[in-house]
Amino acid sequence: MSKLKFFSPISEEMRIVEDQLSQNIDSNIEILNEASLHLIKAGGKRLRPAFTLLSARLFTKDLNDVIPIAVALELIHMASLVHDDVIDNSDTRRGSATVRSAWGNRVSIYAGDYILARALSMAAKYQRRDIVDVLADTSMKICEGEVIQMLSCYNVTLGLKNYLRRIERKTALLISVSCQLGAMVVNASQQSVKAVKDYGYYLGMAFQVTDDILDIISDEQVLGKPTGSDIRQGVITLPALYALNHSPHGAELARLLSSPESCADQTDRIINMIVDSEGIDYAYYITRHYARKAQQQLKYLPDVAVKKNLYNMADFILARDF
Amino acid sequence: MSKLKFFSPISEEMRIVEDQLSQNIDSNIEILNEASLHLIKAGGKRLRPAFTLLSARLFTKDLNDVIPIAVALELIHMASLVHDDVIDNSDTRRGSATVRSAWGNRVSIYAGDYILARALSMAAKYQRRDIVDVLADTSMKICEGEVIQMLSCYNVTLGLKNYLRRIERKTALLISVSCQLGAMVVNASQQSVKAVKDYGYYLGMAFQVTDDILDIISDEQVLGKPTGSDIRQGVITLPALYALNHSPHGAELARLLSSPESCADQTDRIINMIVDSEGIDYAYYITRHYARKAQQQLKYLPDVAVKKNLYNMADFILARDF
Repeated sequence: MSKLKFFSPISEEMRIVEDQLSQNIDSNIEILNEASLHLIKAGGKRLRPAFTLLSARLFTKDLNDVIPIAVALELIHMASLVHDDVIDNSDTRRGSATVRSAWGNRVSIYAGDYILARALSMAAKYQRRDIVDVLADTSMKICEGEVIQMLSCYNVTLGLKNYLRRIERKTALLISVSCQLGAMVVNASQQSVKAVKDYGYYLGMAFQVTDDILDIISDEQVLGKPTGSDIRQGVITLPALYALNHSPHGAELARLLSSPESCADQTDRIINMIVDSEGIDYAYYITRHYARKAQQQLKYLPDVAVKKNLYNMADFILARDF
Repeated sequence: MSKLKFFSPISEEMRIVEDQLSQNIDSNIEILNEASLHLIKAGGKRLRPAFTLLSARLFTKDLNDVIPIAVALELIHMASLVHDDVIDNSDTRRGSATVRSAWGNRVSIYAGDYILARALSMAAKYQRRDIVDVLADTSMKICEGEVIQMLSCYNVTLGLKNYLRRIERKTALLISVSCQLGAMVVNASQQSVKAVKDYGYYLGMAFQVTDDILDIISDEQVLGKPTGSDIRQGVITLPALYALNHSPHGAELARLLSSPESCADQTDRIINMIVDSEGIDYAYYITRHYARKAQQQLKYLPDVAVKKNLYNMADFILARDF
C-alpha cells in the first residue's frame, strides 16, 4: 500500500513542499548546501509536512499559508537527524550515506544548526508568537528526549514509563506539533487544535513503537539501516522491555543488554530471545492501542473527506513495513 | 581598567540579566541543567547583553523590555561556544573545564541545541517578526562562519578578505546584532538602528582582531586557554597572514602553517616568526582602524551620557588584555 494514497488530497502541496525544502537551503557556503541538499535528496517519508497539510485541510481548501510551516517542520526533523547521526556515529540512514559519514562531524554539527535556524526563520514569518513558541518549545523537548535516551542506554532497570517518555520526545511530539500547527495556521478552533494535536500524539506513539519493532524484525534492505541497530547501541525498546520482564531467560537477557560488548557481539542472540518472548506481539498490541486512540480523536473534527485519510493513516502505520 | 566602568549605567540591568540566564535554564533533565549552568557560571564578559542594554539606553531610561533579548543574545553566544568546543575538542574555556570535557560530546551537542532553542523562544515573546528574523539569520550566518573557518584551516593561500569574512561571522555579526536589537526593541529610528548596528560591527571586528593578537602574545593564565591555540588548530589569523606576506622567512612559515604536525609541534617557533615580522603591530594598527570607525558611527546617535561609555568601550578594546 503506497503512502501516496493517504497523501492524495495534498499531493500538489507536497510537491511544493519538496521544492521549497531545496530552495530554502541557499547558504553562500557550498559545503553547507551540499550537505543539506544531500539530506533532502536522501528522501524520507515527509510525514510531518503531510500531517500539517492534512490537518489544515480539515478546515480549509487553500493551503498556501500552510506550506512554509510544513517545510519548517520537516527542516526541524532533518536538523535533529543530522545531530543524531553525529552522536550515534551512524554511517547510513535510509540506505544513503549520512552527512556525518560523507562530510564529517564538524560540518554535520553546523549543518544541523544551520537547518534549525532556517526552520525557525521560516516560522518567524507568520509573526505569531504562539507558532514560534510551540516550535522552540518542541525543539527543547526533543533535545531533552535525546538526552534521556542517551542516559538510558544499557540500563535494564528502567521501565515502561521511561520508554514512553523517550519515544514521546523522540517522535510523538513533533508529529503532534505538525498536526497542531496545521490547524493553528488556518485558525481552527481551540477544541479542534487540541483534537488534531492529540491525534498526532497517539499516531506518533504508534509510529515509533512500530519503528522499534521493525528495527528488530525487518531486514536491512527495507529498513535502510542495519537490523538491530537499537540493540547494538544499547537503546532498550518496548519488545526488549517486555522480554526482560516475561522471558524465562530474563536474567540472561538483562546481563546481555547491560553490556555494550554483548549488545554489539551478540545482537542476533538478543533478537532471538526478544522474538521468543513474544515481545514483538506485545509491542504490536500497544501500537494498535495507540492507533485506535488516534482514530478516536477524529470524532471531534469536521466531517470532511480528508478525515478518512487521517483515519486510514493510523491503520497504515499498523501495517507498515517501511 | 575594569569593564565595570563601561557597564555602570546598566549595572542594575546586568545583574538581572545574570539572574535570568540561570533562571531560563530550567530543563526537566538534570544533566542538561548542570551542563548549561556550568557554562553560565564559567562566566564571560557578557559583552553582548551589555551592548544591547547600552544601545537601548541611548534612547530610553526604562530597559525592562530589553532584558529578555539581552539574555537571548548571551544564550545564542553560549550555544555557539558549546558546539565550537565539541568541534575543536577543547578541554578548557575561560580557564574552566568545557561542557565537552566534563559531560562529553553528546551532551554538549544537545545542550547547545537546547540553549539555542531557549534563546529563540525568548525572542519569540516580542511577537515581532523583525526580531526573530534578525536572530535566525544571524544564527545561520554564524554557522556559515564556522564552516568557512573550518575549511580555511592550514590554508596559507587565502588572503585578508577570507580572514575578514571569518571574523565578521565569528564575532562582529553577533555584537552588531546585539546593538541593533537593543535599538530595535525600544523602537529607535531606522537611522539610529543602522548607526548602532554599524558601531557594533566595527567594534566587533576590532574585538576579534585583538582576540587574535592576544592568542599569540598573551599567556595562558590571562587568556584562560593555551597561548597559540589558533596556530595549533591551523586557524590563520591576521598577524600570521601579515607574516606570511612580509616576513623574510615567509616561505618557511607557509610550510609550517600548512602542516597540522608542525602547527602542533612547532607552535613557539611559529609565534616567534610572527612576532619578528611585526605582524602583531600591523594587527594592532587594523584594530585601531576599526575602533575609530566604531567611534565615528556615534555622531549619528543622540547626545546622551551613555554615548561616552560606548565611545570609551572602543578605546578599552584597544587596551584590553582580557
